[in-house]
Amino acid sequence: MERIARNACFGGWQDVYRHTSAVLGCPMHVAVYLPPQAQQRPVPVLYWLSGLTCTEQNFITKAGAQRYAAEHGIMLVAPDTSPRGDGVADDPAYDLGQGAGFYVNATRAPWAAHYRMYDYVRDELPALIEACLPAGSQRAIAGHSMGGHGALVLALRNPGRYRSVSAFAPIVAPGQVPWGEKAFSAYLGDDRELWQQYDSCKLLASATERLPLLVDQGEADDFLATQLQPERLRAAAAAAGHPLTLRLHPGYDHSYYFIASFIGDHIAHHARALFAAD
Amino acid sequence: MERIARNACFGGWQDVYRHTSAVLGCPMHVAVYLPPQAQQRPVPVLYWLSGLTCTEQNFITKAGAQRYAAEHGIMLVAPDTSPRGDGVADDPAYDLGQGAGFYVNATRAPWAAHYRMYDYVRDELPALIEACLPAGSQRAIAGHSMGGHGALVLALRNPGRYRSVSAFAPIVAPGQVPWGEKAFSAYLGDDRELWQQYDSCKLLASATERLPLLVDQGEADDFLATQLQPERLRAAAAAAGHPLTLRLHPGYDHSYYFIASFIGDHIAHHARALFAAD
Repeated sequence: MERIARNACFGGWQDVYRHTSAVLGCPMHVAVYLPPQAQQRPVPVLYWLSGLTCTEQNFITKAGAQRYAAEHGIMLVAPDTSPRGDGVADDPAYDLGQGAGFYVNATRAPWAAHYRMYDYVRDELPALIEACLPAGSQRAIAGHSMGGHGALVLALRNPGRYRSVSAFAPIVAPGQVPWGEKAFSAYLGDDRELWQQYDSCKLLASATERLPLLVDQGEADDFLATQLQPERLRAAAAAAGHPLTLRLHPGYDHSYYFIASFIGDHIAHHARALFAAD
Repeated sequence: MERIARNACFGGWQDVYRHTSAVLGCPMHVAVYLPPQAQQRPVPVLYWLSGLTCTEQNFITKAGAQRYAAEHGIMLVAPDTSPRGDGVADDPAYDLGQGAGFYVNATRAPWAAHYRMYDYVRDELPALIEACLPAGSQRAIAGHSMGGHGALVLALRNPGRYRSVSAFAPIVAPGQVPWGEKAFSAYLGDDRELWQQYDSCKLLASATERLPLLVDQGEADDFLATQLQPERLRAAAAAAGHPLTLRLHPGYDHSYYFIASFIGDHIAHHARALFAAD
């Protein structure tokens, strides 16, 4: 990992690294916030998955999360949202291709060659972080919108890998809303069984680990009715007996102003799990 | 004032307004954070002046100030940094013309027609804010870099107008550093007497009000030695017997990561003055 940016922030360091991803077959940028405690000892890690059109920059510049991470002593790791570069397939639309990896392993041409964000976030990235930085093996995961979908899917499919999970305005039933239908049709083809492996509502039915879900959703979110539909998650959690805290916030929209307003609650939620006795 | 954006944020509203400025002769954007307390009663106002190249957006997206403003019940008002538009003089350099108003009243062509940011921030903007929004008459002012210069100059020249002032990495002696020499030569010509009206170090010598100055400066700021030179402010304050708290922070640079790390201290500083008994 080559460090390409470093800014002092809340007593720690907001860094950006570049590394070559073997899984994705391209160079990737990943933002890392090292809290002050990391100078003394390995610290637990919260992975943050961003939404459509984002890079590794959006979360670190707009969410104000570093303050809380510094208070609790948690490392923040925010990767880019897709493979990138001239040799990587793309689409002119904002919701397909570069900036829109949807945290799946694509199986269809031309996407399958590089679009393996599920494996990248699950395996390659934490291995790199834990090998190169003062990171303990306690992991949590969170995200926004497409990244909230990614966080929920990664946690639900990998019992024991994450100690906690949370999401802001996640896409919870991608197979039944336009963003997900478009992306999954391109990346995964028409194999609806395969789609279900990336569908939080479907995964809840068979989840073996009862990891509590914390989900915040703004009621003034322009994508609420068309793309997000959190009532599907509520119904699926109820049917499965899975613990879910779904908070609906009047007036809040899909922006980082919403995330900034509640990221402190999320980091406190993760801190409780990350620092719980083993 | 026409509201052109509104986002819920920390229980209040992050708004952006457009209005036609009579002083500047062009439409202007101004960002306003309304804390939750403003729904009940008029609240005091902290004016924030941004630095070179900024618009009204930088502070509201990157500083994380809304959390503290919501805690204390303070309105934040962040104007654009210069007049804008096709009919407004400009220069291709980042440090002159649009985005680089330097908070002066220009006296030279082609700048004098529109570049009157001093009068705009001092008179027109607060009159508008206090007439149209739930703003009390308690005012504070702060800023960053070029905007830190603007905040110090406005406070030092206008006793009684602001209850408190603070700055991040301000340009304190513009007449003696490249940014200021270039801008003042263009906007004010070669009348060095006039320059002194916009020079914090010079103004300290004749300040009649002992408003305490709070200044934060990063020691890893790339502009520290060439453009900022806070030791000049320290010397001027000492010579004048003017109260100054100048904090030097190892490792911190000129970015909004620096501002975000200490904006909470600044807002607490302003809150003490804004809510002090009359």
